[in-house]
Amino acid sequence: MKESPRYLVIGAGHGGKAMAAHLALKGFAVALYNRTPEHIEAIRVRGGIHLESYPGGPAGFGELGLITSNMQDALAHADVVMVVVPSSGHADIARDAAPHLRDGQIVLLNPGRTGGVLEFVKVLRDLECEADVTVAEAETLIYASRSEGPAQARIFRIKDAVPLAALPSGRTARVLEVLGSAYPRFIDGVSVLHTSLNNMGAIFHPALALLNAARIESTGGGFQFYIDGVTPSVGRILEALDRERVTVASAIGIRARTALEWLRMAYDASGEDLHEAIHNQSGYYGIKGPVTLNHRYVTEDVPMSLVPIAALGQRYGVSVRAMDSIIRLACIVHRTDYWRRGRTLEKLGIEQLSVGELKRFVAEGGRDDR
Amino acid sequence: MKESPRYLVIGAGHGGKAMAAHLALKGFAVALYNRTPEHIEAIRVRGGIHLESYPGGPAGFGELGLITSNMQDALAHADVVMVVVPSSGHADIARDAAPHLRDGQIVLLNPGRTGGVLEFVKVLRDLECEADVTVAEAETLIYASRSEGPAQARIFRIKDAVPLAALPSGRTARVLEVLGSAYPRFIDGVSVLHTSLNNMGAIFHPALALLNAARIESTGGGFQFYIDGVTPSVGRILEALDRERVTVASAIGIRARTALEWLRMAYDASGEDLHEAIHNQSGYYGIKGPVTLNHRYVTEDVPMSLVPIAALGQRYGVSVRAMDSIIRLACIVHRTDYWRRGRTLEKLGIEQLSVGELKRFVAEGGRDDR
Repeated sequence: MKESPRYLVIGAGHGGKAMAAHLALKGFAVALYNRTPEHIEAIRVRGGIHLESYPGGPAGFGELGLITSNMQDALAHADVVMVVVPSSGHADIARDAAPHLRDGQIVLLNPGRTGGVLEFVKVLRDLECEADVTVAEAETLIYASRSEGPAQARIFRIKDAVPLAALPSGRTARVLEVLGSAYPRFIDGVSVLHTSLNNMGAIFHPALALLNAARIESTGGGFQFYIDGVTPSVGRILEALDRERVTVASAIGIRARTALEWLRMAYDASGEDLHEAIHNQSGYYGIKGPVTLNHRYVTEDVPMSLVPIAALGQRYGVSVRAMDSIIRLACIVHRTDYWRRGRTLEKLGIEQLSVGELKRFVAEGGRDDR
Repeated sequence: MKESPRYLVIGAGHGGKAMAAHLALKGFAVALYNRTPEHIEAIRVRGGIHLESYPGGPAGFGELGLITSNMQDALAHADVVMVVVPSSGHADIARDAAPHLRDGQIVLLNPGRTGGVLEFVKVLRDLECEADVTVAEAETLIYASRSEGPAQARIFRIKDAVPLAALPSGRTARVLEVLGSAYPRFIDGVSVLHTSLNNMGAIFHPALALLNAARIESTGGGFQFYIDGVTPSVGRILEALDRERVTVASAIGIRARTALEWLRMAYDASGEDLHEAIHNQSGYYGIKGPVTLNHRYVTEDVPMSLVPIAALGQRYGVSVRAMDSIIRLACIVHRTDYWRRGRTLEKLGIEQLSVGELKRFVAEGGRDDR
């Protein structure tokens, strides 16, 4: 791409607003899409988003070229589509976008959770979308940010070294190249199986919420979520879940990072075990619990993170009894079938694949017929 | 039995001391056995136990005829053997007692938890104990009591209407008759399957402890166990466990009480659901959480209550996924295999039985060869 890429940000929540404003302040042409017009009315009236951040960070008014709830208009002038919505919305975005996507466009899920790209591409394929689009997923949202008003956002931190991967993996380099002018901190995540299986939220969020269920509900989240919420016993359960995740990865030939390695890498927080390492991460001090169990830590991370990892385990012969226990408790608490609502291998379009076929699919396959 | 029965109390903990002193104050001949001599040394020196209780309740010095760590001596002069030890000790008691039991003796497990009589009788049979002993179990400990010193105990409450059942069920009437002079509040529990499957501790204790694991460990139990620990979400998990228990009972032809019915019956505490009924039970207010997860709520109630119920479910085709989740979490937290350590159907000696055979076994079978 010779010229500066034109961005479309989909989703005007905590992450989407920060990203749209930040990209605009960097000088890129930016459109913002949100399904519900009321949610972006204040931004439309002002013509952009006011951004604040940490000392020395990006700040100012980010002017947006287009603010719309019309997907066709939104996609018409975009080279890169940054999807910044809860992962439970990825399939809907794919369905809405499918008729309007064009050859050469890049779609990046920020983040994909587990299986985001696979689900997105499956929906496009089912809808017979012919456009040669590259769909990729980031391992985590690059911002720690918050919406601070209808047309205001604040960035607390921009993360270092966020891995991303495209489907097929061979296209990751091109995504990194196109996004490089805006986001030099994205790095090669190897494959969408790697980004999906290195999803640490799958390990931390549902178990911590459920094992502190009564405390969340009886105090409205009035305790330190990680510091009070992770004790030696809870740490052992997190370790069991993490061991299962790493073993599932291993069964499909992937060396995933352990949560302990990730804490050391991302936060320089080390320890003998997860309980210790979490208590050695100063960033966790002061973070309160969610005010309710109806929180994305359960409603999103169980079906979109834990279910697909557990489903891979069941398919490829790895015992995932700890994951199954947590998923089961979530189903009971929310009186819903998170297995059915979640990213099963059918929804990811990979239920028929052997390990070898799965690896070839993410490396080479993408959307061509098999 | 024409004369007043002679009692042996096995176990000098919170329950055993209260029971021994109470029986002695009622005028019965009472021996007290405890495996560890040091634990009963103060009682031996004084010759008995000082009992206090609620206004109008039993109080005074209960003189004991024999205080010993020798099982043979202990059993020599007893007509009724009251076993008041954690259920994880039942098999050991059976092993130690087997060579010394005599025809006509009654052994009552206070309480049996789930499968107490079946396990006890299986051990006697394995050791080829020939004595015609009647083994029975109470559904719960008849006392709410506490040890208040080496030779002191306090009774807070004596429960109304505690069901008990013998193996075979036809012998329950005789047990009630012999115990009636001391304990008119025991009632006919129908069969040991009924007493075992109406074990409410199986539902409440492990789930409440594990779903409040972090809170127990980070506060040392500094919260109201039932009142703060049972919120709507935790209530739904208790209900799922309870539904499984009642369904397991149903699969073997037993109409078990639901926890909601039990709360209404035992405490006149009613409500739309378990969360509401528990909050309507004034007795639960002020009860603190355990100070550690290394507590019998997990270490005893998982292997001795939840595992045998779940094992019956698996054997007779009932899905017990909620129970399995709780058992699994307990295994992880305590790095132990509670399935292996617990009361499996093999340990209860019933793994080969069809439903019909099981029902006949508890109704008629007992210890005769099959």
